[in-house]
Amino acid sequence: MTRVVVTVMPKAGVLDPQGQTVEGALGRLGFGGVSDVRVGKRIELEVGGDDPLAAVHEMCERLLVNALIEDYDVRAES
Amino acid sequence: MTRVVVTVMPKAGVLDPQGQTVEGALGRLGFGGVSDVRVGKRIELEVGGDDPLAAVHEMCERLLVNALIEDYDVRAES
Repeated sequence: MTRVVVTVMPKAGVLDPQGQTVEGALGRLGFGGVSDVRVGKRIELEVGGDDPLAAVHEMCERLLVNALIEDYDVRAES
Repeated sequence: MTRVVVTVMPKAGVLDPQGQTVEGALGRLGFGGVSDVRVGKRIELEVGGDDPLAAVHEMCERLLVNALIEDYDVRAES
């Protein structure tokens, strides 16, 4: 079994309402100098088989990622 | 300005319904041998000031993280 980490982030140029909300809330709490906040997902999973990274790439294409608006990265946990 | 990455994950032992849902869906799609799926957040932000990492730690404590059920990690983007 391999522990695999998938990072999913909104594509550059795609509106990120969650990031904008966090940025606004941080400003209201008095945290200045914060910009370009982006919020994405981190998915960790235990995967068996001969080629766990290839399997997880396929999981991303079929379920975990909306390729229209999100970029993703797959790596074995270091 | 420093690009800072915050990783927020459910604490070990805390129920993760989103992870369980993903695990079930992957099984139904025919992906076998997947277990212990955990879903968390990745937040990227641009931060100014003398000590951006300390500022982001404070943001985590005050807004970004629910310390009761989540662990977090703060690092400058590599």
